[in-house]
Amino acid sequence: MADELTYYAPERLREFSQRTFEHFGVPSADAKLASEVLAMSDMRGIESHGVARLHTYFDMLTLGRINPKANVKIIREKPATATVDGDNGLGLVVGPKANEICMDKAEKSGSAVVSVSNTNHYGIAAYYSIKALERDLIGWSMTNTTKLVAPLWGAERMLGTNPIAIAFPAGEEPPVVIDLATSATAYGKIEIAKRKNAEIPHGWAIDKHGNMATRPEQMVEGGALLPLGSTREMGGHKGFGLASMVDILCCVLSGANWGPYAPPFALRQEIPARSVGKGIGHCFGVMRIDGFIEPAEFKRQMDDWIRTFRATKPAPGTPGVVIPGDPERLAEIERAKTGIPLLQAVINDLKDISTKTGIPFE
Amino acid sequence: MADELTYYAPERLREFSQRTFEHFGVPSADAKLASEVLAMSDMRGIESHGVARLHTYFDMLTLGRINPKANVKIIREKPATATVDGDNGLGLVVGPKANEICMDKAEKSGSAVVSVSNTNHYGIAAYYSIKALERDLIGWSMTNTTKLVAPLWGAERMLGTNPIAIAFPAGEEPPVVIDLATSATAYGKIEIAKRKNAEIPHGWAIDKHGNMATRPEQMVEGGALLPLGSTREMGGHKGFGLASMVDILCCVLSGANWGPYAPPFALRQEIPARSVGKGIGHCFGVMRIDGFIEPAEFKRQMDDWIRTFRATKPAPGTPGVVIPGDPERLAEIERAKTGIPLLQAVINDLKDISTKTGIPFE
Repeated sequence: MADELTYYAPERLREFSQRTFEHFGVPSADAKLASEVLAMSDMRGIESHGVARLHTYFDMLTLGRINPKANVKIIREKPATATVDGDNGLGLVVGPKANEICMDKAEKSGSAVVSVSNTNHYGIAAYYSIKALERDLIGWSMTNTTKLVAPLWGAERMLGTNPIAIAFPAGEEPPVVIDLATSATAYGKIEIAKRKNAEIPHGWAIDKHGNMATRPEQMVEGGALLPLGSTREMGGHKGFGLASMVDILCCVLSGANWGPYAPPFALRQEIPARSVGKGIGHCFGVMRIDGFIEPAEFKRQMDDWIRTFRATKPAPGTPGVVIPGDPERLAEIERAKTGIPLLQAVINDLKDISTKTGIPFE
Repeated sequence: MADELTYYAPERLREFSQRTFEHFGVPSADAKLASEVLAMSDMRGIESHGVARLHTYFDMLTLGRINPKANVKIIREKPATATVDGDNGLGLVVGPKANEICMDKAEKSGSAVVSVSNTNHYGIAAYYSIKALERDLIGWSMTNTTKLVAPLWGAERMLGTNPIAIAFPAGEEPPVVIDLATSATAYGKIEIAKRKNAEIPHGWAIDKHGNMATRPEQMVEGGALLPLGSTREMGGHKGFGLASMVDILCCVLSGANWGPYAPPFALRQEIPARSVGKGIGHCFGVMRIDGFIEPAEFKRQMDDWIRTFRATKPAPGTPGVVIPGDPERLAEIERAKTGIPLLQAVINDLKDISTKTGIPFE
């Protein structure tokens, strides 16, 4: 069965990722960091961004499109800002390092913003907000990605799915972890519909002419995803506005490739017509809670906030209100017991890496 | 005709607003500031937030629910943060003053975040981002508002329409000004449908039981608006996540009333069951462009960004991609010539203020 799942110990997958990165000369500490970003994604049930992507990183490193020994450096700064040049390194290494710089600055000044150029895909946006939580900070994280999304009323791919994440610590309750792509849906859902030969809902995507797509192939073959809100009537201009905000903060501010010029992440994706900067871009923002309010009071109120929203009267036929971050937290608890479920296609990819590198997998 | 429009000189309306605020003892400089926020809204074609709201401010001031002589003060700060207590003043005065504090701090540190409690409705979110543009800064602005929106899978009003604005300066092109409510639609659109006795689109609102509303009355009578994205399939959890982010940054961080406990803005709205803080909350963030990149380079890239997106292949049957801020900028040009169009109902409200205060209007 194509959809059958095999369970793997998280630490075993993390170590395989680390060794794969090391194979290309990524320094051990960096390779470990990168593997941790992928591992968190798998643990939180965001399989699309975990080891399922390792083969793409493998391809990019094999082709020399990513610099394994990147020298991540600050190229401009003020007390509460910095621009970081990622030296075309793994986003999984550049992102965590730039986020650290932002947290260090925020600890000194109370808040800080760090924009990053010359980087590559950085994994799940929530990783960075969760790292801020570990230091009792509020952190937001954004990145641009390869073009997939049309602006409202546009008929071509111009923006990535440009996610926004932010997390807030609570006291007795688990933290609120918000992580959302600014597109109406994920490309992965189009792929699932294609595999099942199913129609897609009105509002997810357009075909190559700019008309609403009803079949997944229409999007895949030169069409585009729609921004969050989908149509003008339902607020598609808002999703476009949010994606634009992410694009400008991550790329125009840092000197990275914005909009349709973001370089491709996978081999099958086309190379953009021109380059307007270096690599893709991220943007991080961090705030000290005690720069605003007593942290104990903040957390007490967050507990109250979470309990109040959890107690919202549920809409008929639904499970009721879900606090942002709850599904991923529950997945984490589950996977700590069961291990990480992988599809056969992903296992085949990992075995292929094993064959090519000699790193044992099985 | 109920929908007939009469045109008024912008300066005349602004002055009438200023004198109305002064009537209640608001100091002249503050009254002028407040009137400018309303005037910008009318000029930009956001009639719902301009003088059309003056009677509500009038009501709140008459009842002593807003402090006309508010002493806006910083109650906690670090170099790049502050919490501002608005002393229950007009949001139209507290907001601009807190935004100034944020801009001053960002000019020193490179970036800053200011959260505001004990305030009231602050007009259009874009006003604050536009003020930052005037100082060549990038500024974002958020506020919570009285509850109107259900979380995804909830059956009751728990959040406001919680807008987010941010603006980016360009060189030769006009700035990109993004300003969006995190709900699928505006309450004003429900009111228009009600007046026209029309149905509302699937995804705008639910009825009081939590089922999708098809008639505007179903939302008005105890129902709720839906968050941006509307349904789970179309990303309604994302709109809920964004509205939650705004709620927490504006209120939990500052000590204001969050979620369903935001105090009402209009007399007809119910008083919340309990109070969890002071007034409503805003949050501002400001960044120096030269904290990241040469401003001339940023603006050159923004011109390129704007021209590239404006040249997107248009979807059939649409006017093509609209750059955020363009519709409001065009309204501003138009209204500078024609004056501000007001509905008879708004004119009647202003005349009522005139009768009750003795301030001439006509």
